[in-house]
Parts: sequence; C-alpha cells; structure tokens
Amino acid sequence: MAFREISPGALLSPVPAVMVSCAAEGVRPNIITIAWAGTVCSQPPMLSISVRKERFSHRILTDSGEFVVNLVGRDQMKAMDYCGVRSGRDEDKFATCGLTTQPVEQMRYAPAIAECPVYLACKTEQVLELGSHDLFLARIVGVGVKEELMDASGNIDVQKAGLVAYCHGIYHGLGEALGFFGFSVAAPKVYARRMKALKQK
Amino acid sequence: MAFREISPGALLSPVPAVMVSCAAEGVRPNIITIAWAGTVCSQPPMLSISVRKERFSHRILTDSGEFVVNLVGRDQMKAMDYCGVRSGRDEDKFATCGLTTQPVEQMRYAPAIAECPVYLACKTEQVLELGSHDLFLARIVGVGVKEELMDASGNIDVQKAGLVAYCHGIYHGLGEALGFFGFSVAAPKVYARRMKALKQK
Repeated sequence: MAFREISPGALLSPVPAVMVSCAAEGVRPNIITIAWAGTVCSQPPMLSISVRKERFSHRILTDSGEFVVNLVGRDQMKAMDYCGVRSGRDEDKFATCGLTTQPVEQMRYAPAIAECPVYLACKTEQVLELGSHDLFLARIVGVGVKEELMDASGNIDVQKAGLVAYCHGIYHGLGEALGFFGFSVAAPKVYARRMKALKQK
Repeated sequence: MAFREISPGALLSPVPAVMVSCAAEGVRPNIITIAWAGTVCSQPPMLSISVRKERFSHRILTDSGEFVVNLVGRDQMKAMDYCGVRSGRDEDKFATCGLTTQPVEQMRYAPAIAECPVYLACKTEQVLELGSHDLFLARIVGVGVKEELMDASGNIDVQKAGLVAYCHGIYHGLGEALGFFGFSVAAPKVYARRMKALKQK
C-alpha cells in the first residue's frame, strides 16, 4: 500500500495525555492538560512539556520553576479533557472538577492531584522557545505512586491505572498487553512465562 | 488511597514506541527503536527523540542531521522490539527484520520504513546533552500516511493503524476510543453524534 504525502504536522502517536498541576507565589493551584510531553532522559530522569505562551499556566510555570505531571486514568479523563479547554484565568479548576490538591515534599508551590494514580514532581532546568510552544525541560525530583498500583515486592503495575493515551484528537484507553521489552529475543520459556503473567493481569 | 514515594524515574506513561530510521554518507540505513520521543511544537511542527551517545545510530543522526520517525502498528511490533535490543553495528536490521526502505523526498539519506503506517521525516535543529541521553529537537518536514488510513475527504483515521504504546516496560495496543478532544464541554447532541461515530470504527 502506498503512502500519501500530507502537509507536515504533529502526528506522532500515541502520546501521553496528562494533567500538569502548578502554582506560584500568590497564585492558586491550576491544572493544564498536556499531550505534548515526553521522557527526554533516563539519568538524570527528565521529561519535557510544551506550553503555548498565551496559556494562563505559562506564567505560573516560568515564575515558579516547577510543576507536577499527573498521569491520567479513566476516572480522571473527563476532568483532563476539561482542563485542556478551559482557562484557570476564569475559574479554579481543582474546585470545578472536584479534584484535591496533594502537597508534594519536593515542590514549593505545585501540588499533585490526589485523585491521579501517579505523580512526577518536576523542576524546570531550561525553557526553549520553539514557535507556537515553549519547551520546558525539567528534572523529575519526586515520584508518587498510589499504593494500590504496587505489589508486595515494591514493583509498580501501571496497567492497573487504566491510563489514557492521546491519538490525533481522540483519547484511547490502553488495550491488552502485547509484549514486554526484549520479547523478540527472549528464550521461548522466558517468553511463555512472562506473556502468561501479562495476560493474567 | 495514599501515594507511596519512590525514587525519581522516567515513569511518564504511556509513551510512543516508534522506529527511527536513519542513514548517512557511506552508512547503510539503520533502525533504532525509541520510546523517549514526544511532540514539542505545533507550529512549526516539531518533535524530539532522545538517544544515548553509545548507540550506533547516534553518530549517524549527528552526521546526517536528519531522521525518519515511523509509527508502529501491531504487525511491526516484533521488529520494533528487535530494533531496540540489537545494534546496527552487527547487522543490517532492515534485512534481518524483513523491512523495506522507502525513499522520502525531503530526506537526503534516511529512508522511511515501507511497512509502517505513518512516517514523519525530520531535520534536526538542535542537540542538547542531558545526561544518559542526548535530545534531538527536529522539525517535521514531510509526512506520509498509508492510503488505507485516509478517507475520501482526506481525513486521517489513525485508529486503523493499530498503533502500539509503551508503558513501563510493556507494549500495549490502543484500546477503545473513550472520547474526543473537547468532549467534556460538547453539547449533548454533538457528544452523542461524535461518540457514536467513534464507536463504529
């Protein structure tokens, strides 16, 4: 099947759909929904978010130098969408969405969202002006995971979180587990054992 | 339910799982699998990929200043995993994986992968050394979409591509469509119509 060339656009998919919570001196906590986010480094752990200059949160982010990325499960999906289309200039989104601020030790101002399954507390190291969006490159300085996502050995089972992905305007739940990193070169016994464990989840 | 704090790590999820194809003067085309990728700007359209310096493709990427991001459907998932664990120093991954190079007009060296549903041809604008990974910030200069993913009006239906997401060591298919951007504030009639269309896909 042939390719059709279309005009260049931001078509990388799927991407994360996360809620970023932030606050600053004298500014109430706000939430902005971000799909233009990615992991950028493993050691030190870093991620990036991209934010338009005209967004209300942009100033909060630059003033405070910190933010919290909250992963989004199905139960928070409606709030997540809402926080992407409404502005914190006009309302207190925590209140409107019935969400709860959760203080995070490593953050001076920004709370996490208590209802979300995982938070990543971030300190901004660099802001790059790219065009429509500014890129915030940030170090992950604190991570919190809901107890219910951890097993007795302290392993995290993110599958239980029912995370949401964003794909060209549409939100999707994650479907079945199809494989694990390295499955293509795993010994048959290892492959069978690990896939069985994945399917049982 | 309470949060348990764990040591900071790259836990953003889900993230894309893509194959990046590259080549350079006198160097055969290679494929490297990347999960540390994200959209960073809408206008101009830009994305980022993060690559360890010790990876064989790192030198190809810096020498050529270009690469192609290939979205991965289920049919390419085994090859995608394989290209993440084996090195192009030792083998021709296009040959080993039975994949086909597809010339891309905007690229001097890098081919797309003909079997993948979508390619994004990218020119690197900046490389930032972050630690374990270097961040390649690149402009998307060409996009190709398989004809079968486009309807008569030229709209893209990425759902048909069966894209794969990466989530803390596990590959997942995308599950059902749960909503569209703006669904939380859509008029009831619009919501009903659009959700019906989504579910029919």
